[in-house]
Amino acid sequence: MADPHSPTEFSPTEFSPADFPLLIKSLLRTPLQIARDVEIVSDGLARYSYGDLEDRLKRFASGLAAQGVTQGDVVAVMDWDTHRYFEAFFAVPMLGAVLHTINIRLAPAQIAFTIDHAEDDVILVHTDFLPLLDEVMKLVTREVRLILLRDDPQQTPDTTFDFITSYDAMMAVPVDGFTFPDFDENTRATTFYTTGTTGEPKAVAYTHRQLVLHTMGVLAGFGPVETDNRLHRGDVYMPLTPMFHVHAWGFPYAATLLGIRQIYPGRYVPANLLRLIAGEGVTFTHCVPTILQMILAAPEAAGADLGRLKMVIGGSALPKGLAAAAMGRGINIYAGYGLSETCPVLTFAHLDPADPDNLDARVMTGRPLPLVDLKIVDEAMGEQPRDGASAGEVVVRAPWLNAAYLKSPEATEALWRGGYMHTGDVGHIDTNGSLMITDRMKDVIKSGGEWVSSLALESIASAVQGVKSTRRRSGQNWAS
Amino acid sequence: MADPHSPTEFSPTEFSPADFPLLIKSLLRTPLQIARDVEIVSDGLARYSYGDLEDRLKRFASGLAAQGVTQGDVVAVMDWDTHRYFEAFFAVPMLGAVLHTINIRLAPAQIAFTIDHAEDDVILVHTDFLPLLDEVMKLVTREVRLILLRDDPQQTPDTTFDFITSYDAMMAVPVDGFTFPDFDENTRATTFYTTGTTGEPKAVAYTHRQLVLHTMGVLAGFGPVETDNRLHRGDVYMPLTPMFHVHAWGFPYAATLLGIRQIYPGRYVPANLLRLIAGEGVTFTHCVPTILQMILAAPEAAGADLGRLKMVIGGSALPKGLAAAAMGRGINIYAGYGLSETCPVLTFAHLDPADPDNLDARVMTGRPLPLVDLKIVDEAMGEQPRDGASAGEVVVRAPWLNAAYLKSPEATEALWRGGYMHTGDVGHIDTNGSLMITDRMKDVIKSGGEWVSSLALESIASAVQGVKSTRRRSGQNWAS
Repeated sequence: MADPHSPTEFSPTEFSPADFPLLIKSLLRTPLQIARDVEIVSDGLARYSYGDLEDRLKRFASGLAAQGVTQGDVVAVMDWDTHRYFEAFFAVPMLGAVLHTINIRLAPAQIAFTIDHAEDDVILVHTDFLPLLDEVMKLVTREVRLILLRDDPQQTPDTTFDFITSYDAMMAVPVDGFTFPDFDENTRATTFYTTGTTGEPKAVAYTHRQLVLHTMGVLAGFGPVETDNRLHRGDVYMPLTPMFHVHAWGFPYAATLLGIRQIYPGRYVPANLLRLIAGEGVTFTHCVPTILQMILAAPEAAGADLGRLKMVIGGSALPKGLAAAAMGRGINIYAGYGLSETCPVLTFAHLDPADPDNLDARVMTGRPLPLVDLKIVDEAMGEQPRDGASAGEVVVRAPWLNAAYLKSPEATEALWRGGYMHTGDVGHIDTNGSLMITDRMKDVIKSGGEWVSSLALESIASAVQGVKSTRRRSGQNWAS
Repeated sequence: MADPHSPTEFSPTEFSPADFPLLIKSLLRTPLQIARDVEIVSDGLARYSYGDLEDRLKRFASGLAAQGVTQGDVVAVMDWDTHRYFEAFFAVPMLGAVLHTINIRLAPAQIAFTIDHAEDDVILVHTDFLPLLDEVMKLVTREVRLILLRDDPQQTPDTTFDFITSYDAMMAVPVDGFTFPDFDENTRATTFYTTGTTGEPKAVAYTHRQLVLHTMGVLAGFGPVETDNRLHRGDVYMPLTPMFHVHAWGFPYAATLLGIRQIYPGRYVPANLLRLIAGEGVTFTHCVPTILQMILAAPEAAGADLGRLKMVIGGSALPKGLAAAAMGRGINIYAGYGLSETCPVLTFAHLDPADPDNLDARVMTGRPLPLVDLKIVDEAMGEQPRDGASAGEVVVRAPWLNAAYLKSPEATEALWRGGYMHTGDVGHIDTNGSLMITDRMKDVIKSGGEWVSSLALESIASAVQGVKSTRRRSGQNWAS
């Protein structure tokens, strides 16, 4: 990857050096220039620099290529949030293959469905998930090859599976002269499944172009924020939404393009997360309410200094009571909004520099990222006023939206009816463009011709001392 | 523009609503949602909001369309930095036409050459430039129609030119139902000329896609800066490099996408600029050294409070002496780097949060924007070490580089030889990716087999009290 844009990879007739396809590998050019010595940490497993990353990705990709993985193949991952997963975010799509981030929280039958439906060719599986995969593979109909992920290269897992190789074996092979290919930016890079309350999981997919533009959108949105909840080059990043959840909301790509220190926590164990936040100096993360509640409730949280931590909350509404509790612990917390179908970031809360602690502003799902075109409509697609009161379904256009549910033309047509993507969420927008989600379409209560919000009722209830929010939204949100 | 992505503008067969072409009009979606009430000020001429801008651009574009201007036509502008020019940045390309920003500082024969060469169909010309245009049109061979720009709609200019209409007449016509078309993002949006010391001016050109990606790059670069020289949503923007100079370095587009207050100063009169900086609360600008020297030397500068002003310096090297003088006046000054051929921003100085006032860091041309791939090479395209000492020619790839000099295949081939764009600048890069330009290729002094920098000598000289830098670089830099 000394020269990933090598002109030798184009045929002479089609080569125009000014063409710059928006490929995942483009995201690495900046950190490899400005952050070669900055660390990427995988708790208990690895600690290396962006400079090392270049060689690691080559080993990873050429190890896959040696197993016959080629452009268009689907490579799935079942792992915790490790450096291995982080590397797969890059190495798999940079090879021209599709990364399938398996949701390890689904039931075995659902996982099996997604493996067959996505047409997985290879699964990279961590030893911890072998018992689960054992259940899953009984139901999978296609031939899938397995690559072992293990924390200790000496470990021989207790399983009947045959592995074509292991991650550690691939990484042990030195690579010389390997370059990542150029191809069309509209090549599919990732796929994963979103589960509703009914029916089979549906596959969303993103192209290289979409992921690069989403990454630029995240930096162009969270960077120029006036208040101190912003993302900047001095931050240390750690995900607190799993990497199988909509690319950990795209922040691993954004952190990489920014060239900042990154911490991958492995399995989410509250004591470990708190140790990493303090010990590694984590300053920027994103989380769903339930995980935040788990962290705050851990015994180790009592003495922890969380005063440097900025946290974007998505996945479900940020209740005011939880926001107040987090701020009481020093966490610079605020809401964001997006779906599995939106890569995912659409909006996030914008704070008033004159009143940055205002809870009402912090729990707003907020203003759109640059290039996001978002409005609320009635059932006939009529745009509703931006008056902070009128409710409507949130519909959106952006350069990074799921174009189609794979093999689901009817669901795709419903998703995109009227030329905008339908979020299935109901909310209102104020004159400054700040969106407040109030309900799922299916949860909305119609009373006297008006839409009454169940979420608003919940937020009021959560602010009462002693009330704990346990609601989990099952829809197409960040945590689905 | 209520719905610029209206599906009715696609034929049913080709329409995919998830397609999101990167068009100039996409840059307006965010401010029209989040900054409808934020002001755009044209000194002495106009003061309106982003909400008003929408209607103004429709009037402007439909006025042009009424005169027969259509996709692919070339519309030139000769004006000071006014709201008219700002609107032309959007309205002309949004119509599918090409904006030719005429360099009004060229000699009449050169301007005439550019009008013929660019195949201008229409020129929008301000009354102040009619005497110049009178000289120019004697040399122009093609038929060009003229539209009058005047500060006072009652004014009848003393000229023999016939005007097909005036800006004020176009803007007086209410527009109903006009929508800006969708088209391929690779459609040319702008063109202008770069002048070397020899030969005819050469035409560079940028597409909608390139301008949108450059805008995202500027926000993703200048936004997440850790130190307080960053660009953010609380800023008030005013250009101090003319709008005909490489789109005023692209900042009018970036300021618009960010939805911040913008001030257009008209003709650059130091007393007016200082009045606007204070009176309109300008906090972010960009400038060439000579203009900054002119401002600091103005009598009105003596009592002016410049303590809120952030300023990016490009066009030629920022001498340490000038940087120190500006900082002494409270200006948060730092260098940037780019060319007419690079849209233009490639790099800017990154400051150390522990030592933000360090002059050596502030005068570095600095680190690349996200997605910019920049290196130094020898004459055989061999990459030189990033050791802060080894010198080489700066070559670059990025999603926003001039793909070809129009009608100049030989110059294009030289520009892009070896698969990278050649900047013609010589510099060194340190281990953190910070670039320091030391010379133009043609100015470099070869002594004992080593390249000796003339700019380094100049910077040393400029730091001596009483020495004033008067060097103006004639090459392909931001101010060319």
